Amino acid sequence: MNSPDLDEIYREYIACLNSQDWQNLACFVSDEVVHNGRRLGLSGYRSMLVHDFEQIPDLHFSIHLLVCEPPHVAARLAFDCAPKGTFLGLDVNGRQVSFTENVFYRFQTGKITEVWSVIDKAAIEVQLKQ
Amino acid sequence: MNSPDLDEIYREYIACLNSQDWQNLACFVSDEVVHNGRRLGLSGYRSMLVHDFEQIPDLHFSIHLLVCEPPHVAARLAFDCAPKGTFLGLDVNGRQVSFTENVFYRFQTGKITEVWSVIDKAAIEVQLKQ
Repeated sequence: MNSPDLDEIYREYIACLNSQDWQNLACFVSDEVVHNGRRLGLSGYRSMLVHDFEQIPDLHFSIHLLVCEPPHVAARLAFDCAPKGTFLGLDVNGRQVSFTENVFYRFQTGKITEVWSVIDKAAIEVQLKQ
Repeated sequence: MNSPDLDEIYREYIACLNSQDWQNLACFVSDEVVHNGRRLGLSGYRSMLVHDFEQIPDLHFSIHLLVCEPPHVAARLAFDCAPKGTFLGLDVNGRQVSFTENVFYRFQTGKITEVWSVIDKAAIEVQLKQ
């Protein structure tokens, strides 16, 4: 698998999330996926995403930067959304906030098998204080 | 410039930081470097790092993951250290904490010209509550 392939698969994965096309999540995510050290598996990963969209009805993933070197993809994702209640332990309560997520993925046989994500919580805190 | 070159340059940059070899920082960092949207320039970037080592005497950068696709490098860095006082707005006060940083770099003519960094502040908060 070469780099352009992973790039394209990753963009299709993000389109899958943005359309909340949970039927097709298995095309992109391994049954045994691990997220930030927790073995969620496909069903746990899907539940996490469904919960995210419930809590953030206008959630939309935008790729700001994409760096591919098989078997890894690194993405800087940008968000501009209004989480309904508490988000990352912060009382956002429907305020519009902008933040980024820097996230790494390891792919195996074309599917995401491990994720290491960091969300810029400090950026949200600054906006809530304004 | 191909990917192995950037990989090697980046590892030398991290070695430069860990040895606090500020004389050689200019070999790796552009005069016009921008960090998280702020145009620090080389001197401002050096000042930021010197301040980090003052506040965190046992600071050490460990590369956990490295993804290179010129002109970008993405790194997941791991830290295990004891910040002296306040760190990221948290009263760490010399406690040993472990955390990660997911960071992207854009290189130009072999030097870092832009940095997008997110530190896992939430991970530190969890440890401080224990």
